[in-house]
Amino acid sequence: MKLVDTLIHARWIIPVEPESVTYENHSLVIDKGRIIDLLPTDSARQQYQGATTENLDTHALLPGFINCHTHAAMSLMRGIADDLPLMDWLQNHIWPLEQKWMSEAFVRDGTDLAIAEMILGGTTCFNDMYFFPNVTAQQAIQHGIRASIGLIVIDFPTVWADDSDAYITKGLNLHDQLRHEPLITTSFAPHAPYTVSDEPLQRIRTLADELEIPVNMHIHETLHEMEDALAKTGQRPLQRLHNLGLVNPSLLAVHMTQLTADEINLFAESGGHIVHCPESNLKLASGFCPTAQCLAAGINVALGTDGAASNNDLDMLGEMRTAALLAKAVAQNASAVPAMTALRMATINGAKALGLEQETGSLTIGKSADVISIDLNDLATQPVYDPVSQIVYAASRQQITDVWVSGKRLLKQRQLTTVDLTALRIKLSEWQKRLTNNR
Amino acid sequence: MKLVDTLIHARWIIPVEPESVTYENHSLVIDKGRIIDLLPTDSARQQYQGATTENLDTHALLPGFINCHTHAAMSLMRGIADDLPLMDWLQNHIWPLEQKWMSEAFVRDGTDLAIAEMILGGTTCFNDMYFFPNVTAQQAIQHGIRASIGLIVIDFPTVWADDSDAYITKGLNLHDQLRHEPLITTSFAPHAPYTVSDEPLQRIRTLADELEIPVNMHIHETLHEMEDALAKTGQRPLQRLHNLGLVNPSLLAVHMTQLTADEINLFAESGGHIVHCPESNLKLASGFCPTAQCLAAGINVALGTDGAASNNDLDMLGEMRTAALLAKAVAQNASAVPAMTALRMATINGAKALGLEQETGSLTIGKSADVISIDLNDLATQPVYDPVSQIVYAASRQQITDVWVSGKRLLKQRQLTTVDLTALRIKLSEWQKRLTNNR
Repeated sequence: MKLVDTLIHARWIIPVEPESVTYENHSLVIDKGRIIDLLPTDSARQQYQGATTENLDTHALLPGFINCHTHAAMSLMRGIADDLPLMDWLQNHIWPLEQKWMSEAFVRDGTDLAIAEMILGGTTCFNDMYFFPNVTAQQAIQHGIRASIGLIVIDFPTVWADDSDAYITKGLNLHDQLRHEPLITTSFAPHAPYTVSDEPLQRIRTLADELEIPVNMHIHETLHEMEDALAKTGQRPLQRLHNLGLVNPSLLAVHMTQLTADEINLFAESGGHIVHCPESNLKLASGFCPTAQCLAAGINVALGTDGAASNNDLDMLGEMRTAALLAKAVAQNASAVPAMTALRMATINGAKALGLEQETGSLTIGKSADVISIDLNDLATQPVYDPVSQIVYAASRQQITDVWVSGKRLLKQRQLTTVDLTALRIKLSEWQKRLTNNR
Repeated sequence: MKLVDTLIHARWIIPVEPESVTYENHSLVIDKGRIIDLLPTDSARQQYQGATTENLDTHALLPGFINCHTHAAMSLMRGIADDLPLMDWLQNHIWPLEQKWMSEAFVRDGTDLAIAEMILGGTTCFNDMYFFPNVTAQQAIQHGIRASIGLIVIDFPTVWADDSDAYITKGLNLHDQLRHEPLITTSFAPHAPYTVSDEPLQRIRTLADELEIPVNMHIHETLHEMEDALAKTGQRPLQRLHNLGLVNPSLLAVHMTQLTADEINLFAESGGHIVHCPESNLKLASGFCPTAQCLAAGINVALGTDGAASNNDLDMLGEMRTAALLAKAVAQNASAVPAMTALRMATINGAKALGLEQETGSLTIGKSADVISIDLNDLATQPVYDPVSQIVYAASRQQITDVWVSGKRLLKQRQLTTVDLTALRIKLSEWQKRLTNNR
């Protein structure tokens, strides 16, 4: 008998790779942060002894969700300015609030709230784009969650940096500081085609190649963005980015609601990734990403919640459901994006987009133990015929009982283990008063 | 001091009528099943004493949700046949399963599961369309939930009845048996234009007028339905129903994804109601109901989950969110269907559609005490700026703590009070085996 750190016996294990397999009455063996075995429970009981053993008799184990696009700190502004179009929302509400309140403390507390909500919802890795990314990284490290930290670049000055050169310099410094953090990676995060000019984009392309990190950007989010770009540059933004050499396997194109058939084919050839944010796109009336068409063209499509101020939750289970439902209606095909495809969008596709597919995104021997358990005994998911279907089309995030990242348990029977909720709630109360009284 | 049955002190009360009001630190006073007062908590503490008193310090009270279209018993088939188009799903999976298994026992146990899930999710009234409506009514009465029982009519024989005359006769008998049940009403439920011929529809129109009950029907659900009707009758279904005299204020037209501008205007003039089922429409790729346009034309639009086999949950909070998000993208207007409008669709609009607006749908003095409480202290809805926004755009149904129907508490601190869960789970386990082994 081999002594290991954690032994989990589960009613179902959904590894995501291979794609069509669900194991019944199987066990996951975790040691030193890695998955070292996945086998029938009868055999596991004979071969392994766990320092911690869990019997999850009515649960499914699956890879943790990968939230491939968010602005974590914006959780502090959840519900503060709803039912408004994108540019009005940004220019007249969000940007003024940020100008007034955004600071290291704002990012620290907002990121804490976001990480708490994400762990509770089964997210084990998030890809962030916001100011004070050093603080976001710090909070991710503190709470033990995996994160891709966006090195944000934008033309205009904020409290974080004065101009695009300064954003890039601070980003490079942060990248360097974080290079030994096992759960943290970085990506360049030029905000959008309409907020970042050619020169910084060219620098980013070169640096991204040198550092071998991805580039993520809001691209083709709205019709207005298309019309504006055509008027100002004579080109749609993707064309401009293509000319700048940015459309390649390192690119995470977030949103992509405005796509022609030609653009889909070209993008597929480029090897770029799409990050689909259905609830944000719906809420801001941005448009409909042709998800099924993109997948059919061979594009890797991952999922993201966007920020809590335009969703308004960071619920990847719900986002996955919305993606699966919406794709069918958009494609006019009820077989489009079936349950397992949606689950892959929320897990392994995100890992691929972030360059982390060797580390996470599936329950595969050798990978990091980034695992979640969902209790399907809840009436909402009964009777169970196909656990994947119940998870994608019926489960609520409160059914997620336990979360591990790199073999460390961040959620134990619905209790967060690395977040001081008492302290957090005091901070939230203070922010609620500030943001209410002093817009 | 007046002694009353129930006194609830709440952080917020959202009555829904008047539309734009949210009361802070107010109390709801319930006696003999009715709301008898709504006033500031300071005054309530001086004027009333409750046999039961609740202090819901971080909660919002609101009217219970009205699920205006479901097939409750189909919960037993949740997830059994996903990712298929409507007619394939119906003809090759659902109807064969029903032919094999549908019975009084099937309807009793499936309805119990549905009612349990609905109460847990804050639904206090549901409008049902299924076979053995006598059993559905019996289960609703047993569990104390309000229900509109559809007297189903369909051309082809099932275990419930042999032909449309038999369906109508059984329906009339049931209507008569139920007439003294305080929480039960009935409506005629001719299934769809493609499953019910003119003669029974004419009888239904006459009988619905005589009995003064509504008529609810799946109408204009898919493009295929339109094309089929045009080929067979030379008319779109709404035109045929209009010629039959059925398009009037008694009509609940369910789905309505296929609508021209003229049809919207004509329907608005008719006074008919629409029941919008966004998640079903998306999952079955049926189309997009032009919700904002219908509301703008003055049509009363209510909400429904449809059956759990095409959703796959009976979660009205989630349905409300999907409706609010989807309407914005469909209308290309991020101000369409704002939070309060979505909440009204899930409450008072459903009451109006069912002819129950004097009884329920808002927290109004004199109405039945059909009330739910949602705890906004959950991290998912923090910080709170606008409780209505947090409920519509961020809350999960697990935050619903208590549910009252006619002043009787059906859910107490997340525990069902009228459903024997142990017995139900045994039944579900038996049905799971039967439906898995013997399709």
